[in-house]
Amino acid sequence: MLKVAIDAMGGDFGCKPIVDGLLLAFKKDRHFEAILVGDKDELLPLIPHKFDSRITILHTTDVISMSDHATDALKRKESSAYKAIELVRNGEADAYVSAGHSGASMSLATLRIGRIKGVSRPAIATLMPTADSTTLVLDVGANVDCDANNLKEFAIMGQAYAEDVLGIDSPLVGLLSNGEEESKGNEVTKSAFSLLEQLPNFIGNVEGSDIFNGSVDVVVCDGFVGNIMLKTAEGVADTIGKIIKNNLRRSLVSITGAVLMRKVFKKLKLKVDYAEYGGAPLIGVKAPVIIAHGKSNAKAIKNAIFQALHSADSNLSDDIENSISKYKG
Amino acid sequence: MLKVAIDAMGGDFGCKPIVDGLLLAFKKDRHFEAILVGDKDELLPLIPHKFDSRITILHTTDVISMSDHATDALKRKESSAYKAIELVRNGEADAYVSAGHSGASMSLATLRIGRIKGVSRPAIATLMPTADSTTLVLDVGANVDCDANNLKEFAIMGQAYAEDVLGIDSPLVGLLSNGEEESKGNEVTKSAFSLLEQLPNFIGNVEGSDIFNGSVDVVVCDGFVGNIMLKTAEGVADTIGKIIKNNLRRSLVSITGAVLMRKVFKKLKLKVDYAEYGGAPLIGVKAPVIIAHGKSNAKAIKNAIFQALHSADSNLSDDIENSISKYKG
Repeated sequence: MLKVAIDAMGGDFGCKPIVDGLLLAFKKDRHFEAILVGDKDELLPLIPHKFDSRITILHTTDVISMSDHATDALKRKESSAYKAIELVRNGEADAYVSAGHSGASMSLATLRIGRIKGVSRPAIATLMPTADSTTLVLDVGANVDCDANNLKEFAIMGQAYAEDVLGIDSPLVGLLSNGEEESKGNEVTKSAFSLLEQLPNFIGNVEGSDIFNGSVDVVVCDGFVGNIMLKTAEGVADTIGKIIKNNLRRSLVSITGAVLMRKVFKKLKLKVDYAEYGGAPLIGVKAPVIIAHGKSNAKAIKNAIFQALHSADSNLSDDIENSISKYKG
Repeated sequence: MLKVAIDAMGGDFGCKPIVDGLLLAFKKDRHFEAILVGDKDELLPLIPHKFDSRITILHTTDVISMSDHATDALKRKESSAYKAIELVRNGEADAYVSAGHSGASMSLATLRIGRIKGVSRPAIATLMPTADSTTLVLDVGANVDCDANNLKEFAIMGQAYAEDVLGIDSPLVGLLSNGEEESKGNEVTKSAFSLLEQLPNFIGNVEGSDIFNGSVDVVVCDGFVGNIMLKTAEGVADTIGKIIKNNLRRSLVSITGAVLMRKVFKKLKLKVDYAEYGGAPLIGVKAPVIIAHGKSNAKAIKNAIFQALHSADSNLSDDIENSISKYKG
């Protein structure tokens, strides 16, 4: 039976949404167990006895807080993140989920669990919404300065994740650039383009708008550009929401209209809400590592746990290793 | 009296929206004249006689099309873009507006009109909407690979444009990065950060979301990142529009609701529509150069013409030259 190690302490709202998310996941799937790493005095009161057989608590009180440096994470051997990562490293758990300090999770996963053979740098991936589906984008923050070979590895890892975890047959892979033509790009993406041409699923350069129109399944970029893309998307969505609300307040006098709009907003939120997707996988380490948003609610944690389980249940690591070796050099 | 040179031929929809835009501008402002560069047989039937005294036609039939290379623009001396640029170079016109090949306009403006003293590279700027106002972002496409000094010049040029043309007192200038902390950034933005600290209006790193929340007036980035930001914003806005429309069709049964929503969409469109802002100024060349969208309608052209006039009426070039010299080295 699969076992998930969960850093129960690092989220912005303490351990309650983490435990609640786990309980939601238990209700939906009877075939996994969890190790909650954190303060047993805080955790125990949150867990109904009927789940006792499926939950182990690994007690610790140290937490890496958002203001700590990621580089300190390796020294904080009693922290909830460190102990949860060690469970995966030692084979006592199959996957790791945390809503804590994302830099700490990345460093610990990369250095303690280790990279898949052939992977130079693991990457953080995220799912962006289109009108009907989603697009996987990586890297969105782990690696700020990348070379062409890093981008090629991201393409291979993204394709494998889309196939093995998202279940997309032969996903289309694009390179994020400032235009679709082969001649477009900066120095790094231009040299990445010629490396990516080896990959049969590579469809060429794609633009920022293509992430949201469903024309590509996997989009590759460095972590600097990926972060700016992500924050831009969030910023535009927020601003449009504000503009709509401001205008509604002025024009929607009828109760009918207001009720209808509330429904639309709810559906819209469902589409663009990260809680729907759970967390961001760190792809390229030997075991599934899911980095959930610090502000994750129970639903987001539930979905992050399912992402971890799907990943652990797949051949992702082997497929990445084989594919990197196949397209080497 | 100010005189605008207009490339009347390069837009996606021919010269009609260009001429219509000019006529709209004439109706609103009696104190400028225009030189339309293009095919007189096409242009003459579009111009009512009452505007004869304010319009000169400079006849030519060659047009640089979207599929031509920007590098060819310098050889195409009979093209509408080349001839319009020459009018500005020779002092026969004060500003240039084109909805044609943007790369051609950039090359011609940079090489034939010339850069302001001290400017290494002119930059394309664009206005992005916030809920209540706008944010000026540059570069969004002229310079794909930039060094720290280029970014510093963009900051100086952007601040001068915000003050002189947009009328913002002491605009706040931010550097687009993957986090607000000084430690964030890629190699180029990190070294740009220390150069930008010389500028009194520099507020530090800003994130993609800050472009849309009104916390900063001028945002500086290289043209690769700027293009991806711009296309991402357009893509998200389109997708949200689609999601709302799809859900409205399903849930909005009452005529009342549909009518109200149409109003909201119209206001929303007004806020995010580039036609409201006209075109993108190429900042750093000796005269105002406004690059309008290829798909510009008459209203967009009208606003592009007003941008050109405001710019020509300001001390922009002198202020950029003085500021670059002041913060040199």
